[in-house]
Amino acid sequence: MRGHTAVVHDGVRDDVAVEEPLEIRVDGAPLAVTMRTPGHDEELALGFLLGEGLIGEARPAGPTADFAANAVEVAGPLRFDPGARSFYTSSSCGVCGKGAIEQVRVHAAALPAGRPRVARGLLAALPGRLRQPGFERTGGLHATGLFDAAGGLRWVREDVGRHNAMDKVVGRALLDGDVPLHDHILCVSGRLSFELVQKAAVAGAPVLVGVSAPTSLAVALACEAGLTLAGFARGERVNVYAGEDRVD
Amino acid sequence: MRGHTAVVHDGVRDDVAVEEPLEIRVDGAPLAVTMRTPGHDEELALGFLLGEGLIGEARPAGPTADFAANAVEVAGPLRFDPGARSFYTSSSCGVCGKGAIEQVRVHAAALPAGRPRVARGLLAALPGRLRQPGFERTGGLHATGLFDAAGGLRWVREDVGRHNAMDKVVGRALLDGDVPLHDHILCVSGRLSFELVQKAAVAGAPVLVGVSAPTSLAVALACEAGLTLAGFARGERVNVYAGEDRVD
Repeated sequence: MRGHTAVVHDGVRDDVAVEEPLEIRVDGAPLAVTMRTPGHDEELALGFLLGEGLIGEARPAGPTADFAANAVEVAGPLRFDPGARSFYTSSSCGVCGKGAIEQVRVHAAALPAGRPRVARGLLAALPGRLRQPGFERTGGLHATGLFDAAGGLRWVREDVGRHNAMDKVVGRALLDGDVPLHDHILCVSGRLSFELVQKAAVAGAPVLVGVSAPTSLAVALACEAGLTLAGFARGERVNVYAGEDRVD
Repeated sequence: MRGHTAVVHDGVRDDVAVEEPLEIRVDGAPLAVTMRTPGHDEELALGFLLGEGLIGEARPAGPTADFAANAVEVAGPLRFDPGARSFYTSSSCGVCGKGAIEQVRVHAAALPAGRPRVARGLLAALPGRLRQPGFERTGGLHATGLFDAAGGLRWVREDVGRHNAMDKVVGRALLDGDVPLHDHILCVSGRLSFELVQKAAVAGAPVLVGVSAPTSLAVALACEAGLTLAGFARGERVNVYAGEDRVD
């Protein structure tokens, strides 16, 4: 399952990132469509469901991906019935299918106070440790990495949607029994939106760092959730917007 | 209505892009929630509804924004009943609320063949003509610009969501009576996804150019719709992925 495909432009052959819809089904019923880069679809489905509060930290019965049909099947039951709501997400969407503004917020358990402790220099350096072969090839993929508290890389996933890349990493961790992600750090290749802070908090990750800017609501939610939020991590420097108590 | 707000990080005061939910209501009933940067909410609502095929090119009765409530009200009727579907979109989502994969595709009228004609050098130069004061201040905003066929800038809109920035520009054009956008060029500050190509095609814009990479589905849809799609526009060079017949 490759994340890139060849196109011809201006008479030359070049690679672009693959974007295709994925239908997430639960017990055979369609729940969501997301525009994603094919591959690791089981992880994507699990991470999405966890982030929406629809499943807990117990690993559900093995999801089954059908690449030909662009669909992935997850066994229920869900924690609650999303009811008439349908979740339909795009390549960079993460708060779809909510029935009201209040419902944009998903409940997250408390994060561990004061841990893990991370050095500021480590936060600044983490994006440089993300392996992004798909981005290097196409320029069109976001990446999320899961690191241990010492900065050791556990997993990287790439996707046309930044929220999909994070869903895939969180889903991988769920399959490994590593959720809640206490004592872990999530690192993203781009901007820090509300939805990414929310996904990190729901997965129990106390630290989220990104290469680029946070939004106002991302900072506000990080403060409220007690999450350490760092942006503009560029090797030599990093800004810490919330949860400075974990940063040495 | 400012697109930025001050936060304090590391003991210094700095600006971040504002992200807040906006509820789009039609005839008093909630239709969609999008995570957006406040401002030009009427344009955003109209551009969103046009892009989803829910309104036509006739300007509807004036939308009314309620900034305090983060809501915008549009007068109906809609072209069809979205029914039980709810559209809930995030800061970077544009294909939300669809009831099935097939519904990801919105009908677009045919684009004018062979026009406008644009010089390759102009396409490469357009991103440099985008004014992005919010991005310069925060590093956290996407931009979309509407240009005439000679490269004259008509409007720029910035938003935390790339699809919102385009919705605002298209909504502005709808208010001005300029839709369908034949003889216009749309220019975006970032990547070129399926959803952005679709929004351009539905608005009748024959040419879409971006600073960064297209996805596979963006290229495929542009070919199918007869839309000129150009990426990696970096001043000196540009890649043309589809619709080369309009490029001199």
